[in-house]
Amino acid sequence: MTDFFKDIPALRYEGADSANDFAFRHYNPDEVVMGKRLEDHLRFAVAYWHSFAWPGTDPFGGQTFDRPWFGDAIDLAKLKADVAFEMFEILNAPYFCFHDADIRPEGADFAENTRNLEIIVDYLGEKMQVSRTKLLWGTANLFSHRRYMAGAATNPDPDVFAFGAATVKTCMDATLKLGGENYVLWGGREGYETLINTDLGREADQMARFLSMVIDYKHKIGFKGAILIEPKPQEPSKHQYDYDVATVYGFLRRYGLENEVKVNIEQGHAILAGHSFEHEIATAASLGIFGSIDMNRNDYQSGWDTDQFPNNVPEVALAYYEILKAGGFTTGGTNFDAKIRRQSIEPADLILAHAGAMDICARGLKAAAAMLEDGTLEAKRRERYAGWDAPAAKAMLTDATLESITERVLSEGINPTPRSGRQEALENLINRFV
Amino acid sequence: MTDFFKDIPALRYEGADSANDFAFRHYNPDEVVMGKRLEDHLRFAVAYWHSFAWPGTDPFGGQTFDRPWFGDAIDLAKLKADVAFEMFEILNAPYFCFHDADIRPEGADFAENTRNLEIIVDYLGEKMQVSRTKLLWGTANLFSHRRYMAGAATNPDPDVFAFGAATVKTCMDATLKLGGENYVLWGGREGYETLINTDLGREADQMARFLSMVIDYKHKIGFKGAILIEPKPQEPSKHQYDYDVATVYGFLRRYGLENEVKVNIEQGHAILAGHSFEHEIATAASLGIFGSIDMNRNDYQSGWDTDQFPNNVPEVALAYYEILKAGGFTTGGTNFDAKIRRQSIEPADLILAHAGAMDICARGLKAAAAMLEDGTLEAKRRERYAGWDAPAAKAMLTDATLESITERVLSEGINPTPRSGRQEALENLINRFV
Amino acid sequence: MTDFFKDIPALRYEGADSANDFAFRHYNPDEVVMGKRLEDHLRFAVAYWHSFAWPGTDPFGGQTFDRPWFGDAIDLAKLKADVAFEMFEILNAPYFCFHDADIRPEGADFAENTRNLEIIVDYLGEKMQVSRTKLLWGTANLFSHRRYMAGAATNPDPDVFAFGAATVKTCMDATLKLGGENYVLWGGREGYETLINTDLGREADQMARFLSMVIDYKHKIGFKGAILIEPKPQEPSKHQYDYDVATVYGFLRRYGLENEVKVNIEQGHAILAGHSFEHEIATAASLGIFGSIDMNRNDYQSGWDTDQFPNNVPEVALAYYEILKAGGFTTGGTNFDAKIRRQSIEPADLILAHAGAMDICARGLKAAAAMLEDGTLEAKRRERYAGWDAPAAKAMLTDATLESITERVLSEGINPTPRSGRQEALENLINRFV
Amino acid sequence: MTDFFKDIPALRYEGADSANDFAFRHYNPDEVVMGKRLEDHLRFAVAYWHSFAWPGTDPFGGQTFDRPWFGDAIDLAKLKADVAFEMFEILNAPYFCFHDADIRPEGADFAENTRNLEIIVDYLGEKMQVSRTKLLWGTANLFSHRRYMAGAATNPDPDVFAFGAATVKTCMDATLKLGGENYVLWGGREGYETLINTDLGREADQMARFLSMVIDYKHKIGFKGAILIEPKPQEPSKHQYDYDVATVYGFLRRYGLENEVKVNIEQGHAILAGHSFEHEIATAASLGIFGSIDMNRNDYQSGWDTDQFPNNVPEVALAYYEILKAGGFTTGGTNFDAKIRRQSIEPADLILAHAGAMDICARGLKAAAAMLEDGTLEAKRRERYAGWDAPAAKAMLTDATLESITERVLSEGINPTPRSGRQEALENLINRFV
Repeated sequence: MTDFFKDIPALRYEGADSANDFAFRHYNPDEVVMGKRLEDHLRFAVAYWHSFAWPGTDPFGGQTFDRPWFGDAIDLAKLKADVAFEMFEILNAPYFCFHDADIRPEGADFAENTRNLEIIVDYLGEKMQVSRTKLLWGTANLFSHRRYMAGAATNPDPDVFAFGAATVKTCMDATLKLGGENYVLWGGREGYETLINTDLGREADQMARFLSMVIDYKHKIGFKGAILIEPKPQEPSKHQYDYDVATVYGFLRRYGLENEVKVNIEQGHAILAGHSFEHEIATAASLGIFGSIDMNRNDYQSGWDTDQFPNNVPEVALAYYEILKAGGFTTGGTNFDAKIRRQSIEPADLILAHAGAMDICARGLKAAAAMLEDGTLEAKRRERYAGWDAPAAKAMLTDATLESITERVLSEGINPTPRSGRQEALENLINRFV
Repeated sequence: MTDFFKDIPALRYEGADSANDFAFRHYNPDEVVMGKRLEDHLRFAVAYWHSFAWPGTDPFGGQTFDRPWFGDAIDLAKLKADVAFEMFEILNAPYFCFHDADIRPEGADFAENTRNLEIIVDYLGEKMQVSRTKLLWGTANLFSHRRYMAGAATNPDPDVFAFGAATVKTCMDATLKLGGENYVLWGGREGYETLINTDLGREADQMARFLSMVIDYKHKIGFKGAILIEPKPQEPSKHQYDYDVATVYGFLRRYGLENEVKVNIEQGHAILAGHSFEHEIATAASLGIFGSIDMNRNDYQSGWDTDQFPNNVPEVALAYYEILKAGGFTTGGTNFDAKIRRQSIEPADLILAHAGAMDICARGLKAAAAMLEDGTLEAKRRERYAGWDAPAAKAMLTDATLESITERVLSEGINPTPRSGRQEALENLINRFV
Repeated sequence: MTDFFKDIPALRYEGADSANDFAFRHYNPDEVVMGKRLEDHLRFAVAYWHSFAWPGTDPFGGQTFDRPWFGDAIDLAKLKADVAFEMFEILNAPYFCFHDADIRPEGADFAENTRNLEIIVDYLGEKMQVSRTKLLWGTANLFSHRRYMAGAATNPDPDVFAFGAATVKTCMDATLKLGGENYVLWGGREGYETLINTDLGREADQMARFLSMVIDYKHKIGFKGAILIEPKPQEPSKHQYDYDVATVYGFLRRYGLENEVKVNIEQGHAILAGHSFEHEIATAASLGIFGSIDMNRNDYQSGWDTDQFPNNVPEVALAYYEILKAGGFTTGGTNFDAKIRRQSIEPADLILAHAGAMDICARGLKAAAAMLEDGTLEAKRRERYAGWDAPAAKAMLTDATLESITERVLSEGINPTPRSGRQEALENLINRFV
Repeated sequence: MTDFFKDIPALRYEGADSANDFAFRHYNPDEVVMGKRLEDHLRFAVAYWHSFAWPGTDPFGGQTFDRPWFGDAIDLAKLKADVAFEMFEILNAPYFCFHDADIRPEGADFAENTRNLEIIVDYLGEKMQVSRTKLLWGTANLFSHRRYMAGAATNPDPDVFAFGAATVKTCMDATLKLGGENYVLWGGREGYETLINTDLGREADQMARFLSMVIDYKHKIGFKGAILIEPKPQEPSKHQYDYDVATVYGFLRRYGLENEVKVNIEQGHAILAGHSFEHEIATAASLGIFGSIDMNRNDYQSGWDTDQFPNNVPEVALAYYEILKAGGFTTGGTNFDAKIRRQSIEPADLILAHAGAMDICARGLKAAAAMLEDGTLEAKRRERYAGWDAPAAKAMLTDATLESITERVLSEGINPTPRSGRQEALENLINRFV
């Protein structure tokens, strides 16, 4: 045991009235909601990068966190892993997620990166033997190193494409080895800084080719998890190709990959793209590509990715409502892609941020389940479209033509009277549950 | 002749040093650029709605324009047409565009709307006999009337769908009759005000079905022009389904319509979606769906659709650069979907706004052509990707696998060195031309 | 009695478990919180304009509401007033607010406007004799009529200034007569559409002069209420001079009016200016100019003023927290400057929107009060600054100099260690109450 | 001579038709415009931080620039200075600007920081003996080090206030010693991450006290330059107290400092605050606090501070128009607070970015001067307000009252007719010059 979290106890569910900061008030993993344990609904994951790799820097300031494991050495990487698993235990976290660059020291070249990764993956594997925390997903960091400054799959230099492809192979191997349930691709540099030096068509083809090889390799090695793309509109790039769910869908369709890939949706990325979180989830569900979520929060008055921990129950409830309506998670889960503020420099801050977020999510999911079980909202929604059950209406969706419809409008004198959308009444209804 | 524009002469090209407000300084329709007359490159169109139908209202204020043709009567609609064609002549405008609701009085029902439309279409047809101004495109206004408040194609009420479908038929008929070169669909209400009363999946199917009928009818009647969708992310709706070019493309692919429909891209809509205008054009070109443009300008510090006349040459040049690179317009053109400010209440303001915009576009297009003819920018772009011409690089885009690439990275010790993106140098290059 | 709200009963508090849509679940006016009745804390007001004057138009669509009182005639204005007071009674609303243009027919000139206003003010006065609903504030609409298109106080035309000044006089007279507790100025057109035709310095002087006359007249007629400016950054203007609370404060200081004027803060306007609602309230409180609030909600993904009814308790709680911390309302109150969506066309929608909002505010205020009474948050805040109680620290705020401080830093070797800001822990704390 | 810029010649003015990348096309320092040399108008300064201290990091990626002087050692700092002055010479830059942290190695405490600063200031002083490049302004970096994570002047810990105050003293000493013409304060951390742990009133008082000591010390040491505050709305802080020009003005008035302090306005910060650059300049001029500019460009589709080099002549022209109209710079100048993109890793990129920007500014200023000399725009502006010259209009700005004005409106039947704002016509006019 390290002493990083010394004096911080493992968190237990104590109920809403607990006076204990280090307790869950709403997240009782064993509570059964809609026939399933809360833990199995929410499938919480801790993100290795924000919690253990990010030093607290921002564009105007340097490191604020003082972590004994910072530095590029195998022993430090192991110390980091030790502390990580201590935190997983304190939080009773069922899952974690990582990039290769989070867990291993940076090497001088691909070979050294791979060796370092293998050593740490073995170390994590050993720790997982005696931990209940599993791997929700792994991924490769193809955006931080300067070699990727102009992209990985979409780089103008084929050697970078090659380096990235090889790196993804090692990360898929690591994910498989550790029993990961998904493999994620976030293309932070797959986009452009300026259109004037960029060939959009060529870069799209490169990106599709790269993704196809990932899919092929998945099948080759027998990885059963899902391949997930994580949309984001911009930042770090001026424009990112995986802009939002609808854009990713178009890309997948264009290259015939829509049955092989799903999306990992992040609240903050949805906001930056001009959408609500629930919009992106509902869109993915309607397109059949919903996979998993990165739960966090973007400050509404900031134009960059703030990656805060969620703290607004009514908003979170709407997100889980769409997830439950779509059948809940299968391979996916709730990954906290959230970082404590750079002023939150105490070890306790790391724990409390997660504890608070887990409670918020539990409250949100329970409210969403209650709304679904109540059924009124869905009944109102169905009722709004009920006119489409009539034969003449149905026919318009099958064999009518503009001419046949025009004829009917004239002959029947169709002159529709608008009906109330009842938005405020439905918002009141939702507020009974949140 | 009406006396609306009395004392305003027809505008002629007088060169950059002219002291005459009512002249073109840069737009000489007969100037040959890259082997084509400027007029044939730019294909300017006046938008009927902003110039002749909009009363100057905004969400906080009423009518400011005092036009003798305002009101719902056939005679007033004819007066409006008279003035419109007088303006077309003053501007020497090769094209115009309209919605049904711009040109005809509003009727009490579909039959009366249709009758009114037919009368005015005949009247326009007569005027076009003696005018050189042609129809760039027609469209149906399926968003202003209260019946469409919850959408047309995506309305929960099938009667509204029917009314909208019949209306589109009449507008396609009108467009064909007047020799229109495109037919446009802008779905201002095809989206939602709140997700909580909306069924995304069903509405997408409705929208696709509606579009399919439009395509079928186009072929049926032998309309040779293009069907164009105009993307916009929001406003009036909280979310609009045709969010941006990439979203429209995904929608078309989903329903197998990508070979039948192109896009009409508006500068202001691009901005509201978080994109530059040139991004949207380049994206459409790379996806093979570029059709036409709505040229205007959105105030960068406003979050709503300001529809101003373009006035920034360097920006406009980048847009035309992408258009010329994609081969220029075929059926499309430069429609001024722009409105004079509501304080610009004089008839002269209407003329001067268009004259200034035509000059701006002419300057932009000539700068873009010079850049293309110079060739340096494209040479630099190709050079940046030149590494992909090597056999090993090409192989990665055809038959390599993650494993074969990994092997090569290891055996060849591939460790790429980043190369400068040269953004500022390229921006300097562009500034030699604008 | 009109039959507009027929079959809709007066709303009563029935508790959180009520199954009745037409009831309050959380707003019990007589509930005592922090020693005061909820009604006296919240001081709810209905806004005449959104509820009774707005026709449901937006920039892309026409009227959706079908109200029997629409039109410009005294009898219709009286009918509107009848319905308004019926709604006040159904809601048990303690207050309402109005612009002159909301309540009277539009006249052909100032004299007719004044006559119309006087007639309706008398009519409202009679209704108020038998109603418990009082006037929170009155105001003049100096932005909708075309004469104000370039501003009222800041118009380049002195005749418009004069017309606006005279109009404000009549509205102040009306407010006094009806016992209004505040008089509000919102300068929707006091700003500019383009800087290139605008003289900022001159317009600021005009605006200050106008405001000074308002203050003088207030004292002259013995109006005891507060004069309130309502900040907004833009829309309808491209730039509005009363941008936000800090800007208004600077303006007041510049002209020595900071003791005579307070601010009326709107949630949606705060958002459009890049601030949270609570920020604007806390800023005003710290500057000594907090007056009243326009409670509503702006859609976070829209860039225009959506004026929705509030529906997020955690957010509303933070606003009331700042208000309670500042001592609560004195002359101010909670005005619902919110409009039902244009699709909410049923009379019941008007009632339900207000009922839901009143419940949301009641929940927010009760949560805020509980947080304040708990005291932990304020204790943590004070503790964070506790170092400033030391004598050497205090001295820095009175008579130290850069030199004396430098000397002390050197002699004492001051080398501060950062301390956690504890943001997530405090957010968890707040989430115990909301 | 170092060999960092080897093979890059000193840039000379060669005219618009030059084919040489390393030349000025529009910036001829000796060209006389409105009676003054261009160099004396523009007063260009190179910013030490972006060009020599920033490593190319962003929130998602590490260092991309490979500079031989990176590292914390006196010798490296001297090498950096050598290269900086070589660049100043290549660019023929009349000025530079710096933060203490840009030029000196970071020390372990205040004493070591001061020693390091003094060594480097002496070194810079020696270099300036043989260089024509002067110091436009100096400043202290009170935002990057973790000690400042919660602010400097506004820190809850008085020791940080003390450390910051002592640091500013050393930077003011350095600025004086090097003949700096201004001293700048940018409060990147003077604001908050969350309102819930913040005492706005106390922090404002701290900030004012800090500023007062700076002013006192300026007078004490006989520094003749201007004290400048640089507004920015947010980033790195969620909210920054010096939000925009109007906010800074209100702060200065509140504490009686408006005659002692001016503003340094940055294009990118203006954009982030929702303003155009020219708006902020015109506002500062009208308030009498215009000081200097940080010339750069913010990407309009990004919500964070992109600090790009300017490249749009029409926009830059509007900024210089306001500056020239206000009388031009006195102590201020055009500081390029702009960074090459992190992919622009070649030394030549640094030179070309500045060269291009200097040309853009020269074109902008010359266009602005031509517009002013032409006089039409100002004549049109004056004409718009000409009505205010009438005696009755003037009287309204002096001794009229709401009552006297009302009487006049009635007696004279004042019923103003709106006049066109002529926005498009004026935009056309401007486009003759840019």
